[in-house]
Amino acid sequence: MMCCFNLYEMTETLFPKKTYPFEVSPQAVDFNFQITLSSLTALLMTAAGNNAEENGFGMRQLNGDNNTWVLLRLAIEMNSFPKQYEQIYIETWIEDIGRVSTTRNFHIRDKNQKTIGYAASIWAMIDYNSRKPQDLLQFDNLQQFATDEKVPIDKPVKLKVMKGRLTDDFNAKYSHIDFNRHVNTMRYVEWISNCFTPDHYNKKKMKRFDINFMSEILFGDPIQIYLAEDEDKDTYFFEMCSRDKTSCRAKLIFADQEFAEE
Amino acid sequence: MMCCFNLYEMTETLFPKKTYPFEVSPQAVDFNFQITLSSLTALLMTAAGNNAEENGFGMRQLNGDNNTWVLLRLAIEMNSFPKQYEQIYIETWIEDIGRVSTTRNFHIRDKNQKTIGYAASIWAMIDYNSRKPQDLLQFDNLQQFATDEKVPIDKPVKLKVMKGRLTDDFNAKYSHIDFNRHVNTMRYVEWISNCFTPDHYNKKKMKRFDINFMSEILFGDPIQIYLAEDEDKDTYFFEMCSRDKTSCRAKLIFADQEFAEE
Repeated sequence: MMCCFNLYEMTETLFPKKTYPFEVSPQAVDFNFQITLSSLTALLMTAAGNNAEENGFGMRQLNGDNNTWVLLRLAIEMNSFPKQYEQIYIETWIEDIGRVSTTRNFHIRDKNQKTIGYAASIWAMIDYNSRKPQDLLQFDNLQQFATDEKVPIDKPVKLKVMKGRLTDDFNAKYSHIDFNRHVNTMRYVEWISNCFTPDHYNKKKMKRFDINFMSEILFGDPIQIYLAEDEDKDTYFFEMCSRDKTSCRAKLIFADQEFAEE
Repeated sequence: MMCCFNLYEMTETLFPKKTYPFEVSPQAVDFNFQITLSSLTALLMTAAGNNAEENGFGMRQLNGDNNTWVLLRLAIEMNSFPKQYEQIYIETWIEDIGRVSTTRNFHIRDKNQKTIGYAASIWAMIDYNSRKPQDLLQFDNLQQFATDEKVPIDKPVKLKVMKGRLTDDFNAKYSHIDFNRHVNTMRYVEWISNCFTPDHYNKKKMKRFDINFMSEILFGDPIQIYLAEDEDKDTYFFEMCSRDKTSCRAKLIFADQEFAEE
């Protein structure tokens, strides 16, 4: 039996495009009272999860069939980062659905409904046990959620091989592993964010973040983090490896703090 | 000027005891779809923060006067841990207020309003810049929030010196530091949780957790984690040190998984 999650249920009330409000909690901010990139990523994931749930193809519905969504690529561009206790609004929708992946977009607004950023993400569905990708075109009802609506930022970039200097080396621990039994997206983002000092964050503001997930890291696996930089361009490249395989690549572009005030 | 946060505002509507609902998000659960101890701690801190805010003595009100709350001790006892997407209800109130510290209690209920745990916490107020403790008795209006209502678990224990074997050794990084500019409570709890394997969590369930905070760890500080165990009693002791000072001690008592079903 290839497909059996209850997509028919979703036809009753469709929310192909919906906005989810969040308050930036004290646990989500850094030393500057500003939301961290990993907490922002978590809110994007939560909005994505909620929207999928409401439309009948969320984790709960999929888990019944031993399927789960995994993130392949994510790009985030921000003009400014909300502060502690600020309200933010994340609107999300599916742009397209192909055989092996689907694109989900995000429009991020501040408390005054002013745009503060956009994000785009590419997902695959895998079998929870075999870890094999599922053919998304087998789910006929999914296609109705493809809105074809883009966001005004570049698509998530496919990052090339880069092996800079080793900056950290450790094993995947209990708190790094999520319900998918692999290292959670937020953890990769934290490890990337940890390559910079508070002083760096005082001077620079993140403009664009790209991350690619290539292979899973499981409990106990060794992890090495490599970093290369193009300081003139305020651009940093990351490669996270485990057992000689690249698990994840990322790229961060910063700008001077003035950028946001322009 | 010693005291100036607007305690008079809170006399209009008082919420000395209030229940906050939370949904256990996918980002808050472990490989077993069960809320992690650190995520549960974060929800307790959020409930505490919300209750303090609503009563006029939260972080935002205090920060205006350069004061902030810091957690000294916390004890949590749980019968069962909620799962992903489950609704939980955290009721919180102040038990007493002394010169140097105040006790805040928590009653944790599941989606059916059944008690699943209790927690008790001891807090001090410090000056954000000098890091010196403030005399809580100077805030006359605070006393009206002391309900004298206890929880049916032992008070947070003062843990004794213990130096077991070194289990981890690293430096405090950007993502470990919170709005108080020191290592966040959740991070200590994560590091403690990381001393155990998924296999351990499959067999054992946490019964009681005690943590004492003694000195702050700041960005870049070295951190060593020591662990000692009394396996017969399913009891584990932790000591987190930085520059030859003990920053934090903790104690975890587990029981066999059957415990919850008794």
